[in-house]
Amino acid sequence: MNYKIVFNTLGKVLVILALVMCIPMVVGLIYQDGSLLSFLVTIGLSLSIGLPLSLMKLGDKSLHAKEGFVIVALCWITMSLMGALPFIISGSIPNFFDAFFETVSGFTTTGSSILSLDETGTLLPKGIMFWRIFTHWLGGMGVLVFVLAILPSTGESMYIMRAEAPGPSSSKLVSKISHTARILYGIYLALTFVETILLLFNGMGLYEAFLVSCSTAGTGGLGIYGSSIAHYNSAYVEIVVAIFMFLFGINFNLFYLIVIGKIAKAIKSEEFIGYVIIVLTATLIIALNVTNSFGSFWVALRHAFFQTASISSTTGFSTVNFIEWPALSKGILMILMIIGACGGSTGGGIKVSRLIILGKSCTNGIKKSLHPRSINSVKLDGESLSKEIERNTFVYFILWVMIVAIGTLLLCLDVNAGQDIFTNFTATLTCIGNVGPGMANVIGPLGNFAAYNGFSKMLLSIIMLAGRLEILPMIILFAPNTWKRGK
Amino acid sequence: MNYKIVFNTLGKVLVILALVMCIPMVVGLIYQDGSLLSFLVTIGLSLSIGLPLSLMKLGDKSLHAKEGFVIVALCWITMSLMGALPFIISGSIPNFFDAFFETVSGFTTTGSSILSLDETGTLLPKGIMFWRIFTHWLGGMGVLVFVLAILPSTGESMYIMRAEAPGPSSSKLVSKISHTARILYGIYLALTFVETILLLFNGMGLYEAFLVSCSTAGTGGLGIYGSSIAHYNSAYVEIVVAIFMFLFGINFNLFYLIVIGKIAKAIKSEEFIGYVIIVLTATLIIALNVTNSFGSFWVALRHAFFQTASISSTTGFSTVNFIEWPALSKGILMILMIIGACGGSTGGGIKVSRLIILGKSCTNGIKKSLHPRSINSVKLDGESLSKEIERNTFVYFILWVMIVAIGTLLLCLDVNAGQDIFTNFTATLTCIGNVGPGMANVIGPLGNFAAYNGFSKMLLSIIMLAGRLEILPMIILFAPNTWKRGK
Repeated sequence: MNYKIVFNTLGKVLVILALVMCIPMVVGLIYQDGSLLSFLVTIGLSLSIGLPLSLMKLGDKSLHAKEGFVIVALCWITMSLMGALPFIISGSIPNFFDAFFETVSGFTTTGSSILSLDETGTLLPKGIMFWRIFTHWLGGMGVLVFVLAILPSTGESMYIMRAEAPGPSSSKLVSKISHTARILYGIYLALTFVETILLLFNGMGLYEAFLVSCSTAGTGGLGIYGSSIAHYNSAYVEIVVAIFMFLFGINFNLFYLIVIGKIAKAIKSEEFIGYVIIVLTATLIIALNVTNSFGSFWVALRHAFFQTASISSTTGFSTVNFIEWPALSKGILMILMIIGACGGSTGGGIKVSRLIILGKSCTNGIKKSLHPRSINSVKLDGESLSKEIERNTFVYFILWVMIVAIGTLLLCLDVNAGQDIFTNFTATLTCIGNVGPGMANVIGPLGNFAAYNGFSKMLLSIIMLAGRLEILPMIILFAPNTWKRGK
Repeated sequence: MNYKIVFNTLGKVLVILALVMCIPMVVGLIYQDGSLLSFLVTIGLSLSIGLPLSLMKLGDKSLHAKEGFVIVALCWITMSLMGALPFIISGSIPNFFDAFFETVSGFTTTGSSILSLDETGTLLPKGIMFWRIFTHWLGGMGVLVFVLAILPSTGESMYIMRAEAPGPSSSKLVSKISHTARILYGIYLALTFVETILLLFNGMGLYEAFLVSCSTAGTGGLGIYGSSIAHYNSAYVEIVVAIFMFLFGINFNLFYLIVIGKIAKAIKSEEFIGYVIIVLTATLIIALNVTNSFGSFWVALRHAFFQTASISSTTGFSTVNFIEWPALSKGILMILMIIGACGGSTGGGIKVSRLIILGKSCTNGIKKSLHPRSINSVKLDGESLSKEIERNTFVYFILWVMIVAIGTLLLCLDVNAGQDIFTNFTATLTCIGNVGPGMANVIGPLGNFAAYNGFSKMLLSIIMLAGRLEILPMIILFAPNTWKRGK
């Protein structure tokens, strides 16, 4: 293990975090909300740890797969610890476990909350609320990708990008990693900007429009009000947000292809087609299933599309309390929650491309059971996938199932919460998928995770991180083998 | 596709079924319960279809993997259709869907029921009740294995055995398949005999002792009374049944090794050790978790062991209504339900050996992510597993997850039943695992599946068959490719 490069990168991330935190500090100053001290202390602490580490002289600049995983896992945990400080110091969320949960939920773009927000939006000081939701935007595209975008890249930083970027495979758009990272952030900024403008059209204030856009962009789902997007009571807002949630669930490589004019290639992507089919089918079935409760098919269609886009992209915004929907609609939303968005998007879940790979591998496997000598490779978008990607997809899926099973069981230890297995099961699903609301009333779109005890909140935080970083970095960080001398 | 050999084997199975059905007919005659006609008609029909098919001249005796799968799937469906006739004709279960569900549940050793049994045990005529539970014994070891045991084997009958026998790999105990099949049935008969004798010691009548033993041997779980094994209100009966449930969940190869004196080799089996660890750990945690409700740790331990052995072996007997247990205990039982018993036993579930293979493959995969050039093969009991078994295990697991997801969703269409997602989820789990009771009150140990409509019952029947035959035969039977000309 090359410890120096690990701590050096950690230092850079802390410095970036300190700089970025100046934005909510300024917001707090503008609104004179008294949150200045909490940000100043955090920024000071981040810099005093981060600067010396980032200025450390590196002898050996080599960086292997293992360091990549460890760097990413360690940075995300440190970021979340540091990011929780403003909540604790300002007294907005005094309990450590609560503040850590909320911050992890923010960075991982989950959007589960322990706060009982109301419709006034005044529970938190404006600067703190800004920070709470802005973490979605930072975590969405990846903090280390951001570091790669703005700092001179160190050695084989591809390993860092691979470990942080979601999806079964991550490809460089252009030959240089730092350029790829900049392109991704450019697209991300542009889309966030467009959504903000569109929301301003409706008369929403800049503060709110920007935060709703940040939450959408990261496919996070934390909101300012207790009733989420239903608060705005506007079909226009709902449709704009729904469309952008859908867009942020698409692989960003596709936007790049569109920008450079290769629209045909972008539209032919199997994952994109799969994602569109999933969202449209789910929307239609749910709309038909809930038409009665809205009185009109078209209104039902609007709500069905919003909820489908929200859960599919793993954002977690809501316009209705879908816990009260019929079992079929809820069942579909649960499956969407598990599938999630496209690889290379800001969304979570298992990812549509992984499902396609698993499905094709299965079909291949069945064919081989019948004709043992047949040779079929799994193809995606016309290209044969390497055995490595196929194997990693299987491994990911099995680890995913194991984490969900163990997570659900460990939550059942929490007798204070008194939740039933199903509530705990959907809590685990929503956290590992980085979605937000669970499928039971207490943790549903109108509920929150406050009832769980400290242990459960830590567990769910780790599950959110595992979900965002796609499991492997967290496992490798905690594997005893990783830290053996000479390894 | 060699149609002739498919239908020839189907004919043999029907003839055997007709012969076997003479046993419940004689039971009915002894008790003068009026079930004679229903058995006579069924036996006559079985013979008139089965005899001509089984006497058909075979030109080409070749049998490939595909024929093996198709034979097994087709035979099990036909058996279940034919086996349902006595219920329908006698009027005991007049509805076709109900009778088919009950028969499939019997043959697949699931033990889910649509009947509301009481404590008198007189809801069904004795001969019909005997048939209902005896199907467990027939299905447990496999009907085609029985055919292979008593009839001169046809060509490469290994394919049939592989398709019917549970577990990731099936090995011949001795060089000849027919001898292997006879040894398996010998062990099976001997264990059933011993359990019957042990139950007679407690003063249980021969009829009941034999049926309880048949239900245990097949790890089925259908009982004579509404309260399952709690009816007998006897610690002795509970402990005997619990121990035998545990035993029938062990790979029968181990019993063979013990019989031929290779006890050390048997005990060192990784799957066996895994199974023992799972059962003991679960028993202990559950016992501690439910001690309060029984007042004594030791009584709690007895009930915990019974329920653990019952669900682990996928039998489904109960001594308490475990739906009322705390979430942790229920969560553990659900995980046991998913894991199931050992390969090569009469139990269902994913199988302990598959989990071990998946776990080891995962560990290997993670190692390869860190050291791409490392070469590690997955070993079980010291022997390297073929890539084929590893691949089949992955494929099985993914298909399993897909069936559970789709099954749960399709059950949500059943608005008459009005079940919630969780009930439907556990219904699917218990049926694919061939366990019996679900984890919600309505389908729990004191409930039944009567509330589901005909479509749901057919769906659950197909899921039970998929579970018992380990998915592939059912998929290949229904795949359009299988039936294309020239294939």
